[in-house]
Amino acid sequence: METLGVALGSRSYPIHIGAGLLERADLYRPHLGGGTAAIVTNEVVAPLYLERVSVGLKQAGARVVHVSVPDGEQAKSWQVLERVFDALLAARCGRDTLLVALGGGVVGDLAGFAAAVYQRGIAFLQVPTTLLAQVDSSVGGKTAINHERGKNMIGAFHQPLAVISDIATLDTLPDRELRAGLAEVIKHALALDLAFVEWLETNTARVMSRERPALSYVVKRCCELKAGIVAADERESGVRALLNFGHTFGHAIEAGMGYGAWLHGEAIAAGMAMAAELSLGLNLIGKTEVDRVKRLLAGAGLPTNGPALAPERLMELMAGDKKAAQGKLRFVVLEALGKAALRGGLDDARVRRAIVAAAQ
Amino acid sequence: METLGVALGSRSYPIHIGAGLLERADLYRPHLGGGTAAIVTNEVVAPLYLERVSVGLKQAGARVVHVSVPDGEQAKSWQVLERVFDALLAARCGRDTLLVALGGGVVGDLAGFAAAVYQRGIAFLQVPTTLLAQVDSSVGGKTAINHERGKNMIGAFHQPLAVISDIATLDTLPDRELRAGLAEVIKHALALDLAFVEWLETNTARVMSRERPALSYVVKRCCELKAGIVAADERESGVRALLNFGHTFGHAIEAGMGYGAWLHGEAIAAGMAMAAELSLGLNLIGKTEVDRVKRLLAGAGLPTNGPALAPERLMELMAGDKKAAQGKLRFVVLEALGKAALRGGLDDARVRRAIVAAAQ
Repeated sequence: METLGVALGSRSYPIHIGAGLLERADLYRPHLGGGTAAIVTNEVVAPLYLERVSVGLKQAGARVVHVSVPDGEQAKSWQVLERVFDALLAARCGRDTLLVALGGGVVGDLAGFAAAVYQRGIAFLQVPTTLLAQVDSSVGGKTAINHERGKNMIGAFHQPLAVISDIATLDTLPDRELRAGLAEVIKHALALDLAFVEWLETNTARVMSRERPALSYVVKRCCELKAGIVAADERESGVRALLNFGHTFGHAIEAGMGYGAWLHGEAIAAGMAMAAELSLGLNLIGKTEVDRVKRLLAGAGLPTNGPALAPERLMELMAGDKKAAQGKLRFVVLEALGKAALRGGLDDARVRRAIVAAAQ
Repeated sequence: METLGVALGSRSYPIHIGAGLLERADLYRPHLGGGTAAIVTNEVVAPLYLERVSVGLKQAGARVVHVSVPDGEQAKSWQVLERVFDALLAARCGRDTLLVALGGGVVGDLAGFAAAVYQRGIAFLQVPTTLLAQVDSSVGGKTAINHERGKNMIGAFHQPLAVISDIATLDTLPDRELRAGLAEVIKHALALDLAFVEWLETNTARVMSRERPALSYVVKRCCELKAGIVAADERESGVRALLNFGHTFGHAIEAGMGYGAWLHGEAIAAGMAMAAELSLGLNLIGKTEVDRVKRLLAGAGLPTNGPALAPERLMELMAGDKKAAQGKLRFVVLEALGKAALRGGLDDARVRRAIVAAAQ
């Protein structure tokens, strides 16, 4: 097991990475407050791992209760959140309850938000069981549910007490989910770390065949990169926005296709190809770099061109997102491989050209 | 105008108290981030004060949007919260929007919680227009909505950027609401400050006839007391619980009568009489002190005995609250007038005797 730290003053916490961590009572014990642990998981993960986590928590001395939510992005709704609250209240969970989010990004976002607002906030652990959650969403305290007008519109920054990433859980991850997780791995590399880009150019096949040392390395490297960013900018007022590389395009793709048709990672992959083309259009990088981006994505079995949506439709969706939310549209572009930057005030024609170019 | 401070490190903020503050652009200007201000108020307050706050914000340079919610405790629901989110999204409010909570405790709790979770948290101002909100609920960052299994079950600690208490707004407050606010004033005094108890014994009539200097004094003194408590214990892990004096009984009265039948302040008043009797039963204070408590409440036109609910029903409701939430029932008792303390592990018979004694 390796342990990294996220440095956030009194809210600092460890990220444990290794195989066979789910049942380790010693990792749970320091975080049990009043003795009750409430595991939130979903109907796919529960049959696989609920028992092992329960055993670990019980060995640590906890009274264990659990609540299962539906699988998929649709679970990030108020209705499902209410179900979690109902279960916590029915099980007499007080403010000293430890909530344990066991599952992928959806469970982490939903359960983390439940922990953020249940009785004005209770402690929680992230126990991610997908590559996407282990390399990205379980670290940094972003929690949220969706609103019909936009993804992650209602949420909170609520840091976990610890992240416990058992990479053995990746053994049961469907191939498509593994690839989707790789999209966020590639995002970290392209946005922040040229050496990691180069490592991935050589080793992506090892990750795809689930070699443990390769999986451990990508989880660890992504967590190191993300921990540094989060420590510098917990609430995304600056540098943390660079981790949204590919996400402005990607969110539009997800919304345009209907959530769930494309996995988040797949949409982000196509979004990164578009963002790379946009960077080329701005003369920030050359054709060679764009080709390397696309080759990296293709090597991970990820799409590099958008879905069957007209560029105009994607433009509309991004504008809708802009109107609904930030008031202005900014893109994360690449100044080099491993070096992302924010750019605003781009004209529509330039953005549309990038979408078209990525499709070719 | 007088200005106090709540000392919370980087989240410290001022409380401005005075007459005619609503339209003061200089109080709003420092807090306008991206230039949009979203006023959340209710259908009773809007016709009285929305225009003046809008004018002040516009003079400060803001684009002003507003959303009106229903009057009363029922507004602290997810349905109404969703309506606030819908309005903010429809008005293209981004993360840099300043939310302005204009109204009493319900509006402050609801709008504050909306600010806590909209796009993972936006800045907000408390502009309280009831005595209860000015002396208590607008200070300290507690925000929440209700769950059918309990009051304030879903919420957040989210501190405002400032509290702007315009005591001229108390001119339009119905007498019953003024009295209900006085219950929280008396609570602060009984729990924390003997000299303030003595001041109230002499001056409550001046407050009830709305003499401005007397109103200013009670708002200021309560805010001073509460600011000290909040600075010491922002998240209620210790001393802040003393401000729940009268609230365990009071919440049971509210729940038993149906929210709204008794105002919160009225229920708390009866709850304080019960808590005083409980303190007498524990030999912490004498009969003289209990009589002073009841006289203070009666002098403010507040009930000192519970509603037409059997003591057994109140016991049940408190036990239900206990099961639902904290796992154990604790009472705030008086060790002296102006000196509250927490007591747990009391047997039911003792608590029931206090309820019966208060009714006599």
